[in-house]
Amino acid sequence: MRLILVAGTTRTAERDGISAAGATRDLLLHTPSADAEILTYGEPIRAPVTPVSPSGCPTPAAVTRAVYELLDFEATVVDGGLARPTAAPTVTVGAKPGRDIGEPDPVQTAPGAFAAARELGRALPDEEIVVGETVPGGTTTAMAVLRALGEEWPVSSSLPENPVELKERAVAEAFESSDLEPGRAAHAPELAVRFVGDPVLAVAAGLAAGALESGTEVILGGGTQMLAVAALVRHAGVPESMTLATTSYLRDDVPELPAAAASFDLELVVTDPGFDAPDAGPLSAYADGVAKEGAAMGGALYLASREGVCERVADATLDMLARLNVDDGP
Amino acid sequence: MRLILVAGTTRTAERDGISAAGATRDLLLHTPSADAEILTYGEPIRAPVTPVSPSGCPTPAAVTRAVYELLDFEATVVDGGLARPTAAPTVTVGAKPGRDIGEPDPVQTAPGAFAAARELGRALPDEEIVVGETVPGGTTTAMAVLRALGEEWPVSSSLPENPVELKERAVAEAFESSDLEPGRAAHAPELAVRFVGDPVLAVAAGLAAGALESGTEVILGGGTQMLAVAALVRHAGVPESMTLATTSYLRDDVPELPAAAASFDLELVVTDPGFDAPDAGPLSAYADGVAKEGAAMGGALYLASREGVCERVADATLDMLARLNVDDGP
Repeated sequence: MRLILVAGTTRTAERDGISAAGATRDLLLHTPSADAEILTYGEPIRAPVTPVSPSGCPTPAAVTRAVYELLDFEATVVDGGLARPTAAPTVTVGAKPGRDIGEPDPVQTAPGAFAAARELGRALPDEEIVVGETVPGGTTTAMAVLRALGEEWPVSSSLPENPVELKERAVAEAFESSDLEPGRAAHAPELAVRFVGDPVLAVAAGLAAGALESGTEVILGGGTQMLAVAALVRHAGVPESMTLATTSYLRDDVPELPAAAASFDLELVVTDPGFDAPDAGPLSAYADGVAKEGAAMGGALYLASREGVCERVADATLDMLARLNVDDGP
Repeated sequence: MRLILVAGTTRTAERDGISAAGATRDLLLHTPSADAEILTYGEPIRAPVTPVSPSGCPTPAAVTRAVYELLDFEATVVDGGLARPTAAPTVTVGAKPGRDIGEPDPVQTAPGAFAAARELGRALPDEEIVVGETVPGGTTTAMAVLRALGEEWPVSSSLPENPVELKERAVAEAFESSDLEPGRAAHAPELAVRFVGDPVLAVAAGLAAGALESGTEVILGGGTQMLAVAALVRHAGVPESMTLATTSYLRDDVPELPAAAASFDLELVVTDPGFDAPDAGPLSAYADGVAKEGAAMGGALYLASREGVCERVADATLDMLARLNVDDGP
């Protein structure tokens, strides 16, 4: 079992009010680099800070790392367009940071990175992989990519109040600045990610497609961004069944998720890590609708549940956060 | 516990007859990329072949991976100047491939990579690390670096017959083409690696120095190249004690090793993996003096020995090699 975290950036995240994946706008682009370090080392190394939301909710990467420490699987980070240095080891598939989707041709490296990631996915020796993402602003690009493919499903948000209007504006600008129209990238996933998407979607979809093609079981660990990844995989002509593993917080936010998962032939598994418990400390923000998902958290929780250690995840995460001095609630 | 493999290249390896770290001259520069993949995935992914010596002896990275599968430690690859693509995740510290040491200023990135690796070493959260190397041609650059530091110790070879004359010629050319003379880089390790060394030595020495400075225990896993790393650490003004963990094959090849280790205040531990057993298949080449060490093998064997699983390493490695179709003896 290998958990693969695709870590990258889109400057779409720098639009005011669009993402909770960082305490401030300046820190947003550091979040994927920090998440990669937290998964690898259990703490930030080169990154300046442990990512928290503006309200203090700790990054879901801490949950994924806590599960990693409880179980025995391999964890690998793939560079999906990192914009800041990371001390985590990363696999290179040619992805570069994505520009704001309001700009023309914002992710020129997407088709090449999709192809290279697909080859990597095919070559992986693992019987089963979990694929997750960390990319602030990623639900906005996911919304645009779903539309480009002609797949009308809603996306979630790392904020308690989904800034749907801001996202709609960004998506509208993306279609205006490109030659694409909604539905026009059907069966052309490379075009969708290149013109209205982000590099993480391209890399995650390539990995999943290639892994499925070579007989590896694929668990997409995450929410509506991984739903967009599934859509890209299907539009790449890869029909093998997959699992979408997410958190109860994400599922509660997106009532359409079961129907969306079914439409892409995904088995949906939902795990409740119990962060609404009275002693959940800063993790209680999850139960209040902050973050909800990310950094493969839903996939890690599914593994924890399968191995019977799900009830230990909250405590293990709190221990980790205490070591990181993120122990006072939001 | 984290095992760190520093993987990189020097074109010094392309001199005829200088290295056994590849079946042919064309494959030599692929060896570190392949070794990194074998450590990470148990098999080559992007690299074209499992590295073997010209006589068919399998890479020591297979032994290190076999130990990794037997034990429970983390494994991290740091890019020490890779010249060929790898699907392994790697940490970047700014090292680029080294040129032939007969050329002027062959490793311009060495001082920067040394400094960045030292910072990384300081930031590592681990209580104990093993540091190893994979760089064909590395004993020749190690010989030159030891001389530049004024430390006169012999180096080993991956070939059964050490091509000492070829090495002496390369080292002489290195001093001719640079402004250095033997002994002139004492207390200036950055100059030694830059003008007569290779990028792997720079990165491994930086990592070890930084780790020691922050209270992490350091085990250098390897032979005379790791001896050169120890020399660089001492000449960087870092006095904390370290361990040098090597194989019995390497120790048998270098009678001066105990004295050299003592001179750098290294505790020397030697492990015999028993590859001279009648059923050792292709591993019996080690007992005949091929390869001897590399890819942190001595460090991995030390861990195996400490955990009481050393007797299972040969079988575990043979199982792995059978999967890789490297199962007919040299």
